[in-house]
This record gives sequence, structure tokens and C-alpha cells, in this order.
Amino acid sequence: MKRMLLAAAAVMLVGGLHAEERVDLAMTSKIRQEAFNHSQAMALLDHLTEQVGPRLTNSPAMVQANAWTRSKFDEWGLANVHDEAMAEPFGRGWEFHSADVEMLTPRAFPLHALPKAWTPGTNGPIEGDVVAAKIEKKEDFEKFRGKLKGKIVFLGEARAYKPGEKPDWDRETDATLDAMKALAVPADQKPGAREEARERRRQRLEFAPQLNKFLVDEGAIASVTQSGWDNGIILLSGGGSRKAGESVGVPSLSMAAEHFNAVMRALDRKAPVRLRMNVDARFTTDTDQPAYNTIAEIPGTGPHRNEVVMIGAHMDSWHAGTGAADNGAGVAVMMEAMRILKAVGAKPDRTIRVALWTGEEQGLLGSADYVSRHFGKFADPADPKEKAMPVMLRNPRGKFEPGSDYGKLAAYFNLDNGGGKIRGVYAQENMEVAPIFETWLKPFNDVGATIVTQRNTGSTDHVSFDTIGLPGFQFVQDGLDYFTNVHHSDLDVLDHIVAEDLKQASAIVASFAYNAATRPEKLPRKAVSAE
Amino acid sequence: MKRMLLAAAAVMLVGGLHAEERVDLAMTSKIRQEAFNHSQAMALLDHLTEQVGPRLTNSPAMVQANAWTRSKFDEWGLANVHDEAMAEPFGRGWEFHSADVEMLTPRAFPLHALPKAWTPGTNGPIEGDVVAAKIEKKEDFEKFRGKLKGKIVFLGEARAYKPGEKPDWDRETDATLDAMKALAVPADQKPGAREEARERRRQRLEFAPQLNKFLVDEGAIASVTQSGWDNGIILLSGGGSRKAGESVGVPSLSMAAEHFNAVMRALDRKAPVRLRMNVDARFTTDTDQPAYNTIAEIPGTGPHRNEVVMIGAHMDSWHAGTGAADNGAGVAVMMEAMRILKAVGAKPDRTIRVALWTGEEQGLLGSADYVSRHFGKFADPADPKEKAMPVMLRNPRGKFEPGSDYGKLAAYFNLDNGGGKIRGVYAQENMEVAPIFETWLKPFNDVGATIVTQRNTGSTDHVSFDTIGLPGFQFVQDGLDYFTNVHHSDLDVLDHIVAEDLKQASAIVASFAYNAATRPEKLPRKAVSAE
Repeated sequence: MKRMLLAAAAVMLVGGLHAEERVDLAMTSKIRQEAFNHSQAMALLDHLTEQVGPRLTNSPAMVQANAWTRSKFDEWGLANVHDEAMAEPFGRGWEFHSADVEMLTPRAFPLHALPKAWTPGTNGPIEGDVVAAKIEKKEDFEKFRGKLKGKIVFLGEARAYKPGEKPDWDRETDATLDAMKALAVPADQKPGAREEARERRRQRLEFAPQLNKFLVDEGAIASVTQSGWDNGIILLSGGGSRKAGESVGVPSLSMAAEHFNAVMRALDRKAPVRLRMNVDARFTTDTDQPAYNTIAEIPGTGPHRNEVVMIGAHMDSWHAGTGAADNGAGVAVMMEAMRILKAVGAKPDRTIRVALWTGEEQGLLGSADYVSRHFGKFADPADPKEKAMPVMLRNPRGKFEPGSDYGKLAAYFNLDNGGGKIRGVYAQENMEVAPIFETWLKPFNDVGATIVTQRNTGSTDHVSFDTIGLPGFQFVQDGLDYFTNVHHSDLDVLDHIVAEDLKQASAIVASFAYNAATRPEKLPRKAVSAE
Repeated sequence: MKRMLLAAAAVMLVGGLHAEERVDLAMTSKIRQEAFNHSQAMALLDHLTEQVGPRLTNSPAMVQANAWTRSKFDEWGLANVHDEAMAEPFGRGWEFHSADVEMLTPRAFPLHALPKAWTPGTNGPIEGDVVAAKIEKKEDFEKFRGKLKGKIVFLGEARAYKPGEKPDWDRETDATLDAMKALAVPADQKPGAREEARERRRQRLEFAPQLNKFLVDEGAIASVTQSGWDNGIILLSGGGSRKAGESVGVPSLSMAAEHFNAVMRALDRKAPVRLRMNVDARFTTDTDQPAYNTIAEIPGTGPHRNEVVMIGAHMDSWHAGTGAADNGAGVAVMMEAMRILKAVGAKPDRTIRVALWTGEEQGLLGSADYVSRHFGKFADPADPKEKAMPVMLRNPRGKFEPGSDYGKLAAYFNLDNGGGKIRGVYAQENMEVAPIFETWLKPFNDVGATIVTQRNTGSTDHVSFDTIGLPGFQFVQDGLDYFTNVHHSDLDVLDHIVAEDLKQASAIVASFAYNAATRPEKLPRKAVSAE
């Protein structure tokens, strides 16, 4: 109730401010010129994806990406260029070079599969018969005990091909953008839903290492799961364990859906299926190592120079492709926005800071760590089981402890919904920022960025800010083929990126950062729910 | 002019016949029951694709497919079950088991590629630096002479990713079917167009073996071209040579478009690119072997028992997938149609003969050979260069020589546009058959088969009949993902086939064969153009 009253009062005030919200059109014009006509965004992305490669958190390539992005920031004359280690060691490094899999019987043909992160390689070619095993909980172990020695275990069941009845590649239209402005009033949670979510999470956390250990103890030589997408696309994430001292399980791969199904059908026919595989994958450190966010700044020169506007994207990626859309595109745009601001000679009142996050794919870890150390956090629970839960699922969530810079953050802008251009911004139910953002977007209406929606969007690093009531935002982007073909798959490569979209996004991010760094007040904040 | 007059007279006559065209609805009902409720089509296709595997012409798997389909025909009690060799030896057998390709420098990652048919394997792992070479005609050889020793040659240029803005999977609608009824009156050929087509063909025939020899002579160790489709799909056909005594060139692969582009971009940056590859591919015969069509019959029992209705599909396929849509689906439907006719106790007046063609992918070779030996052909030119041309491009085309059975063929029906169900039939500008087919389709209007179009369709085995004026037809089928993802690609596998579509097509083919084998007259024939 208190929160609603506060919001109502604020709307009136913003109504007053709105008329005064001012955009420096001369500077916007310079930014557009630099972004559209002298873009380096695609060249940056090319280097990051094809020369550095995919950037699994703590892999050698991620270390190289930290170093290379620092060198570019130095080259452009940014200040305070540094890597900032997460408070706790993230885990071990891992990388892979190749994965050859073939069926030997009942007929010889190549199978398309790639290894999950933090799983061991095969140490040269191995051969084994396949056993299908639906092992989803501890109770299932008994069914397979004694039956897996020397076997390649196909986990789970076959899933039928699902025809692609919509285009792979899609852009928002005026109609879909309009529809996105509607906010559904939240439905009541079902009674017990929170406890069920906690229980599912707990079981998942418990079961994964148990399965790793079971497969090793039983002498299985590899495990294979089915890619979540069809058409030969390999969707994957991690397996094994990144933590030193924990079982990494057996070599574990994600296989093209069609090939997985062909193996399962052969087993259904009682045909003995024999595979050969050779997976060149390795842990690159024996001990847990810290993971690093790369940070750089354009220092503020005005009365608010101690305040900061942040922009960011995550630099880590999965390893099947090169992390071009997820989130090389965001990184290239954020780097390019900083380059543009230097190139146009921006002298912001507040400091503008870019952060290239690590560990996003493992749960927004880099940004959450950074926010907790600089801006504040909900106190960690003493119980390690509660600590393993995401903040929102902890019982209790913990007391909010503001950090030293809690009052200094003016805004945070994130880009992490693929390579598509910006069509607007999610206001995250912060009613006061909507008219401000509408004003800021006006100079970019002509390049397709038009809407402000009060919808909350999740799953990107702005959540680390939003969770503690800081004004953190993610842009609305064209989907392209992000959620049909590319996200976490082997198709997340440079070819699926559009240079024009990166240019447009770079201009808008640079402009938003500049606007937030020069307006008289920091962006208004939402009330933080105390529960 | 003479042809037009003949056609006009025929229309009147058919108008009279049309009223009498009779369909045995009791038999149609039995056929539908058997096809829809006791289908073996999917089981047949499963065996053909996943147990036999892909069926490159003259590969061991194709030989196995000939034997297995004969055994099924025997099991069902068909008559005159036999393989019929083509008059001239087709070439050597070839198969492959695996193809592992990885980039070693500038960064290590697996590349997705498959070998072209009739190209040699690597005899174990090989390594080499990549050279990009646009070699399209003899004159280009000089540019690369002395530069390819020990190299892996990337032929051609990078092609940008093309977003998929239509759904991969599509079915006809009432509107698209309606549109398909329209026939565009043929435009005049540009002057010289025929001579240009002859010249292009001649150059292609000449250049391929010259390039094979050049790469071998220069000491290149492999060649790679870019897949014609994006999204990691590998589209391929043949390379090297299937003819004993000809140069098979170097190991030659088709590579996923995105990976090909990544290699080309690295070369553009002047980065030395080194690959390792291990291609297990082999010729299975040293000498040219005949290729075989598999033939079987339900003998006619009426006064026209010496006449024949044929149905057919090609059993050979390319080797990237398992040839499920192209043309395992057609084979399964044709086999199933014969099984249905036996199961319902059909006693046709005319003989119904099924042909499972070989060599379709190399130019309708199996059906053309069969038709030429049984029904007639345009005389072969003495000049071997003219003989190498497709019949339609020969100068002169040759005199038509009817075969002994030219008068006996009542109809031929083909299915080879993927796995999609039947939506109608192409009448091939045979005006007299249209009202007949409309009557035959009526009992299948309720399962989506509705249109007769006068359009000519090409590229399937009905052309071998149509070319010499025999009534050969291909059905109109739903496209599904045939021409977006599947045709000649590694996605041509069982998962992309819909069992219900095969059932529908089997019923219609069985019914059309029965109708053609029981109607009083053979199907009317078009006039054959004499030029």
C-alpha cells in the first residue's frame, strides 16, 4: 500500500519534469554520425568471435577477451581500465577443440555432437555400446546399476521433430511493438508455488553431482543427451562440474536431435548400437580461479562526477558457436558506444562506466558480484543450502545492506537479447522513467526505436541492479533468429549478425548513457519490495 | 499447327467420355481402409532409411535396397519380381563412414563437412594449410599453378547468410492450390538460348574432370566447397568421378556455410589457416558396374492383361542423410500401394507394375534406360559429345524409335517431391486426362487431394515417359521442408517425414493405379512434338 502511494505521488512529479526533459540534439547528431558512418562495431565483434573465439567463463579465450578488451579501452584513452575479480573463485577453466562421433553399428555414419562445458574429454578414441537410460532422480539408479560398464549412456527419451511453422528470422512490426506496451496485471501465485520452485531447484542442485558420480562409479564411458532444437542444431550448456574437487562425471555430449532419435530407434529395434567417439576437451586449471569483469570509464567532469552511469553486456558465452549474438553483439555495442563517446569528445557531468561481465551464463554471476560489492546486497544466509538458492528463492531473502556507492548509480543499461537492433526499452514498472525514455528515444524513432513498455524482462544482467532497486534496464530488440536457431547453439556465429543493427544499437546506447550522465538528476528509482 | 488441331478434336471427345468415367467406390473404400488403418508405409521407410541407410546409386546399400525390396515383393506374393540392369554400366560403387574436420589454427574448433560422392577418402588424418581459389574455368588454372602443393583448396567465394524469412515447413492452402491451376502461356525463348544452354552444359562436362586433374597434378590434398544452404545444413551431391579410369580428384567436401565463411574470413585477415581432416570414404568396386531398377507386378486378369499400368519412385539417394524424403518416401508409398492392392484382393484388368528406379540423382538414368528399352527412344547420336547431352539439348534430337511395348503402357504415376501428402496431380498439358483425374481425385477430396493442373513439372522420373509422349504423371505434394532444409541435405532423415502423409499418398496411388488398370481405355496420350 505504501508503495502504491509513493508511485502515485511520483507520477505527478514526473509529469512536471517531463516537459523539461532535455536531449542535447547537437550531441545526438554527432553520436549518430559517428555510429552510422564510422562504425567499428562489426570489426570489434569479428575480433571477439573469430579471433578470440567462444568465451566460456574462465576459459583461456575468456582471459584473452578480458585482455583484448582492456587493450582496446586503453587504445581509446578510457580511464580506470581494469579487470575486477569476483569475490569468490568461480571454478576451473575448460576448453574443447574437437568432437568426432560416429556410429559403427548397425550402420556406419557420422553423428553430430558437441561436448558440454566442464566435462572431460575421452583421451583419444573410445568405443562402446549404447544403453538408453531414463535417469531423472536418485530412485532411477537402481534400475541401471551394474548395466552401464563400458557403455555409452543415452540419457532421456527421443523427442519427435517439431516442424518450424514460423519463420526462423523475425523482426517486430508496429503491431507487435504496440502489443508489447500492454502489461498483464500479475496473477496470484498458486499456493505452494514458491515452495515447489525451491524444491525443484534443490533437487536439481542435488541430483546433477549424484548422476555424475553414478555414471563414473558404474564405469560408463560417456553420456549423451538430445539437443533441444531440431534441424541438426546443437543446443548445449554445461555438465560435469566446474568446481575443483567435485566429480566431473564422464565425457558428456549434446547430440543433434535427428541423430539422437536415429540411435534411439535402433535401440527400440533391439539392434546393438556401437559408437566411436573422440572428444578433445580439457580442464585448463586444476584449481578454482577467480573470474573477471572488465571495467573502463570516461570520467565525469561536472559537479556530479562522483556519480556513475553504467552500461554493460556479458562477455562470457557458451562454446558451441562463438557467442556472437549471446553476447558478443552486446559487448561490441557497449565497446563501440564508449568509443563513440570518446570520438565525439563527450564531456559528461557524471562518469560513464562500461562493464563487460563474466559468468552471466552461470546465473548473472559477474554482474551480481559487482553490484553486491559496489551497490549493495541482501545479506547472505548462513545455511549453505539457502546460499545456493537464487536470491529470490531464499527463505528468508536476507536483510538489504546498501554498499558504499548505492546512492551514486544514476542508471544502468544492458543489451543481451541477441544481435537485433533496438526497438525500445523495458521500463521494468518504473513509471517515472517512462516519459524520460520516451523523450530520449525520439531522436531514434526514425531508425526503428519507438516504444517504452512497463514490462519487466528478466534473464539479463540488468536484473542484478533491478533486484536491489537500482534503475537497471534492458532494451527491447528485434528477435531475428535468436530464440529459434541461435541462442546457446552452434549457430551462434558471426554470419547471423547484421552490421546495421549493431550501428543503430551503438548510437542509442551511447546517447542513453550521455543523457543519463548529463541530466540534472539521477534516474528515478522504484521502491524496493522489502519481502 | 497440326498439334493444336488434334488437341481441339480430343477435347470434344473427352467431354463425351467424362460423363462415363467411372470409379469403383467399393474398391476405393477398401483401399482407403487398408491404407489408413493398417499402414506399413512408415515401417517400410524406417527399414529403408535407418537399416539400409542412404542409397547412392551402385553403393553397397543400394544393392541391399534392391535385395530387400525384392524380398518384400516376394513376401507379398507379387509376380515377376526382379532387378533389371541398365543397358550400360553406370560406374563404380562408393560409400563413406565418417568425416572429421577441424581447424587447428588460428583457433581450434570442429568444422562440419561431409564428402561428395565418388571422391576419395584421406587414408587417415591429413593436415594442410588452406588456400582460397576461385577456379571456374580453364583460364583460372594459371593463377594457381605451383601454389597448391600440400594445400587444402577452398573453391569459390564466401556467400553471406540469408535470413529465413518464411517458415521452413509449409503446406498448400486452398488459395495456393487454386493459384497452381493457372498455366502461364510459354514465353518465346531468347534467340540463342538453346545454344547457350548447350554451351554451358558442354563447358561443365569438360571442366569438372579438368579441375579434378589439375588439383591432383598440383598436389593439393583436399578441396572444400560451401554448402548451398545456411544454418549448418550440409547440401551436397557428387564430385570426383564414378567412371573407372577417370581421375577421382582429391578428397572433396561440402562444408556448412557458416564454417566455410569463418575460414574465408580468417584468410581475408591473412591469418594462416590450418585444418586437419580424416575422411573415411571408399570406392567399393574397381570397375564400372551395372545399376539396377527393381521391378514387380500384379498381373492383369482381364482382356487387357497384356497392357500395363506403372507406378514408380526412385530408390537411389544422395548420402548426407538417409534419403528419407528424396525419395524413400516415394518408394515406401509405391511399395505400400502394391501391398494394399494385394491386401484388398484387387484383380485388375491390366497388369500393374511397380518400378523402384536407380540413378535418378544422376539424371533420371534408371527410368530413362527402362523406358528406352521397353517403350522407345530418340535415336542416340553417333557423336559422343552429342550423346553426353541430355536428350532435349541434342542437335539433332534424333529420330523416335518406338519399342515393342510402346502401345501397351496405359499410364505411369510417380511420387518424388518429398514426403508431403498428395494435393492433386500435374496433367502435363494433356487436356484429355484432366477430367479423368478430376473424377479419380473426388474420393480423396476429403483428405486434401483436390486439384488437377495443366502445369508441366519436371525433374522426376515421369519425364522419361512424358518425353516420348507416354502418359506419365507426377503428383502435386505439400512441400513441408523439402525445398527449404531437406532436399539433398543431411536433414533428409526419417524425423522429417509425417506418417499420415504417407498413408494418404499410398491410398491415392493405389487407387489411381487400380483405376488406370480397370478403365475401358488406356489413358489418352499427348501428341509428341517431332522437333
